[in-house]
Amino acid sequence: MSTANATPARRRILVIGGVAAGMSFATRMRRRDEHAEIIIFERSGHVSFANCGLAYYLGGVITERDDLLLQTPASLGSRFGLDVRVNHNVTAIHPDEHTITVHNHLDNTTTIEPYDELVIATGASAIIPPMPGSERMLQLRNIEDVDALDAALGALDPSTANTVVLGAGYIGIEMAENLIARGLSVTLVQLDPNILRTFDVEMITPIEAHLRAHGVDLRIGTAAIAVHDTTVELSDGSAVAADVVIAAVGVRPENALAVNAGLTVGAGGGIRVNAGYETSSPHIYAVGDVAEKIGAISGEPGLVALAGPANRDGRYLADTIAGDAVHSPPALGTAIVGVFDLTAASLGSTELALRAAGRNIRVIHTHPVSHAGYFPGAESLSIKLIVDADTDLILGAQAVGRDGVDKRMDVLATATSAGLTASALADLELAYAPQYGSAKDPINHLGYVARNLRDGLSASVQWHETDAELAAGSVLVDVRTAAEFERGGIPHAINIPLDDLRGRLNELGDRRVIAHCQVGQRGHTAVRILSQNGFDAANLDGGYRTWMAAMG
Amino acid sequence: MSTANATPARRRILVIGGVAAGMSFATRMRRRDEHAEIIIFERSGHVSFANCGLAYYLGGVITERDDLLLQTPASLGSRFGLDVRVNHNVTAIHPDEHTITVHNHLDNTTTIEPYDELVIATGASAIIPPMPGSERMLQLRNIEDVDALDAALGALDPSTANTVVLGAGYIGIEMAENLIARGLSVTLVQLDPNILRTFDVEMITPIEAHLRAHGVDLRIGTAAIAVHDTTVELSDGSAVAADVVIAAVGVRPENALAVNAGLTVGAGGGIRVNAGYETSSPHIYAVGDVAEKIGAISGEPGLVALAGPANRDGRYLADTIAGDAVHSPPALGTAIVGVFDLTAASLGSTELALRAAGRNIRVIHTHPVSHAGYFPGAESLSIKLIVDADTDLILGAQAVGRDGVDKRMDVLATATSAGLTASALADLELAYAPQYGSAKDPINHLGYVARNLRDGLSASVQWHETDAELAAGSVLVDVRTAAEFERGGIPHAINIPLDDLRGRLNELGDRRVIAHCQVGQRGHTAVRILSQNGFDAANLDGGYRTWMAAMG
Repeated sequence: MSTANATPARRRILVIGGVAAGMSFATRMRRRDEHAEIIIFERSGHVSFANCGLAYYLGGVITERDDLLLQTPASLGSRFGLDVRVNHNVTAIHPDEHTITVHNHLDNTTTIEPYDELVIATGASAIIPPMPGSERMLQLRNIEDVDALDAALGALDPSTANTVVLGAGYIGIEMAENLIARGLSVTLVQLDPNILRTFDVEMITPIEAHLRAHGVDLRIGTAAIAVHDTTVELSDGSAVAADVVIAAVGVRPENALAVNAGLTVGAGGGIRVNAGYETSSPHIYAVGDVAEKIGAISGEPGLVALAGPANRDGRYLADTIAGDAVHSPPALGTAIVGVFDLTAASLGSTELALRAAGRNIRVIHTHPVSHAGYFPGAESLSIKLIVDADTDLILGAQAVGRDGVDKRMDVLATATSAGLTASALADLELAYAPQYGSAKDPINHLGYVARNLRDGLSASVQWHETDAELAAGSVLVDVRTAAEFERGGIPHAINIPLDDLRGRLNELGDRRVIAHCQVGQRGHTAVRILSQNGFDAANLDGGYRTWMAAMG
Repeated sequence: MSTANATPARRRILVIGGVAAGMSFATRMRRRDEHAEIIIFERSGHVSFANCGLAYYLGGVITERDDLLLQTPASLGSRFGLDVRVNHNVTAIHPDEHTITVHNHLDNTTTIEPYDELVIATGASAIIPPMPGSERMLQLRNIEDVDALDAALGALDPSTANTVVLGAGYIGIEMAENLIARGLSVTLVQLDPNILRTFDVEMITPIEAHLRAHGVDLRIGTAAIAVHDTTVELSDGSAVAADVVIAAVGVRPENALAVNAGLTVGAGGGIRVNAGYETSSPHIYAVGDVAEKIGAISGEPGLVALAGPANRDGRYLADTIAGDAVHSPPALGTAIVGVFDLTAASLGSTELALRAAGRNIRVIHTHPVSHAGYFPGAESLSIKLIVDADTDLILGAQAVGRDGVDKRMDVLATATSAGLTASALADLELAYAPQYGSAKDPINHLGYVARNLRDGLSASVQWHETDAELAAGSVLVDVRTAAEFERGGIPHAINIPLDDLRGRLNELGDRRVIAHCQVGQRGHTAVRILSQNGFDAANLDGGYRTWMAAMG
């Protein structure tokens, strides 16, 4: 019965920015309030586009440009009654007047728009590193960028052209892969000593090798210092040919409107918000890449430019404005990237960052197989888990491999968010058939190792501690087979195969023993044998494989 | 320094059964106690074999028989100092004397073996359904079974031979697939009205259709009543040709030793154990398929014959005997099966079982894509979540699809074990790039729906409630496009496309409205429009797709 008599007061809700956070907010807001006036102002010509697919369109993986456009102003109007205004640039927010100034690029007019509630979802823009010639740099943030890049790349002759990507973060790596897919030569320049700073060095060197194996000319620990007409000049004195230069060194919050309106922003430029996404000014909210998020590990506000939290927070903000008592979840920073046929995923903090912060941590490296080893197609993957030594809670995780990486990272993200301890991973009952996992899944195995460390049943040393151990007089015992040992090992190690260890304990004297094997499992058994026979013993975590990866 | 002076008292620990639980126990026990005497008695000729891979060896997916043999008595002896005695049948337990009687099949001798601690890990045996000719039935539980089946199947002429599998549970389905892979014709007979009783009907009919599409002659709701020389006689009066008959109707705990020794067993025949795996008799423990487990959903002891819990519990029992205060985790029953190129996975209870138990539940069906729809290779999957309406906790989950099923089930298993509410799935920050998932992952989406239901923002009806709704005078409104509607819909539904709904509310009179679309998403938006305009409205959960699947 359509007896809706007294129409409720019609709120006027304005949204600045119509991509992930802004549009998730607007559509949810409509479902929460059928009668509100909801207007979205988008500076570019498109809303709701697939920003995580842009690189793959350039590489030809996504073949139809229309597939990038998930919604149009017309479709959003008819389905959700949204007033979507593209090519409209908001130039000022006036908190005291509850208005904004909007410039319409289509007819070159400027209007003042009043609001009851204002949502800032302006996102983040690519950082263009300042240097001579930086005006030549292209970027990849929206459809206009894609069209410009597509035109620039299309004008190149693949047999002679050279491209340079500055920055080997997620976007830079995806861009490099897709330029290779397009048949172009690529130099990928990274200022840091390693790519992807959400990973520690020993986890990410296999990805660096993989990029090189696929033809990417990777220059790490190197800065670009100038862009010339046909080259990019690097800090090591070299110059690389560059017909097209793409800036992918990172993003910064598009906070100018907020700053000019006097809203509080944090050290990184993100708009400071409370648990209900409200800024320092009442009735003004911020969501998505432009807003700060509370870090799940640090507990501190910071920047997390990821699509998942942006979409979720847009939705939750609508619930907030609808009157629900919503608390924005902390950001774990779960992220994943495909690198040709490898996958790398991470969450939380790195060992490097946690040690720098003085945290008391335990670190676990494993190299399990993606599913039962006896079933065809099993692939090795490498997982790193970083655990709070005081609470046994998960502080970080990293995984690299061909198959099963995304699954394990999602399980770890769920466990971490739920506050499970690392040891509790042992208890999880995961779906097992031999083509999908193992009866002792890699996740369970992490829990086993964590529990052994927690309970003092095993002690471990990290790859970066072996030199100090040797210097202090420890003996490094390689418990692999003689054949494995002869194919290569850690310098100064002696070889006593695990199956012979019980009979050769007398060769070890009274020194502390660091046992190691290929991946850490036999080393653990060796430590159990040694410690129960009176030795001071520890296992080289992750074994020879982790040590080798760290050596690059 | 090997100064282990006073050797601790050497415990004698006997293990009956050397596969998953027994051998996980034994190897962990050695790592916990370097000096104990640990003897494993295994009735068959093999220990530590890959029982979950047996069917795939018969189908030629696993090509090497040796790959099924993960360890040998010799390898376990040299690595773990275990005394592994195959072809040794334990014939009696004498709790008062702390001894067992063992018959050695190799030399036909019988000995009495004393123990300090005794572990029963005898597993479960295939049920051979009693009927005339049942002695012709083969089974698939161990290496000897595989060899017998391989010989029997190898003697067949694929162009004329017929095989019959009794029971369409996990083993029966895997067996049917692998017989097809071997080029044989297969009739799969299931007494229940549907296959795989851990699923509800509307989730599993696509798997039934898939089996048939791959050539399996599936007979559901049908009993075998006799096995004749060349046929199996069925309850529907038909007879199917059968050169080989395989019994896969289920397993029962191998509890005879325990029963004869006076140990307490539960209603299903499982040995009753406490949280430390101890039976009713001190110093006698039971783990694996022979032991009861506490159900995570029911809170009651029952049987869960799965490899994951068996391996885990074997390990934890070693910790118990080593003196740790271990509490066995409840069993969630997480299980998965490949069915040709489809995957089906489940955990917890079914809707059918929970409704029969009078539980107050909410049910959610979704049909998301495995990763971002704009990225090539996205596949539809179907997920069902069953939620406690009082606590919002997860009581059951089922998923069917081509890709991404195992990942989502593992996340749900983790969330359920961790005690997350269904609504909290919305908060999870999962690894997103377009080839791996969606910015709003299917898991998040389940949380969104759960939260809407919990908060009263949406009401839903299930496919099995539509007839009653129509009978009570509700109007069924198909909000899909006219083109979709014309391709087929639910009888008695009228078509008002979602984008037209706001303008056509006056056509609906004052009746209760059941909105439906293809999968439930547009239906939800329709319900929001309708309810905010004064209508009593609900969404057909899972939409036309779930309804169609239920119709078979």
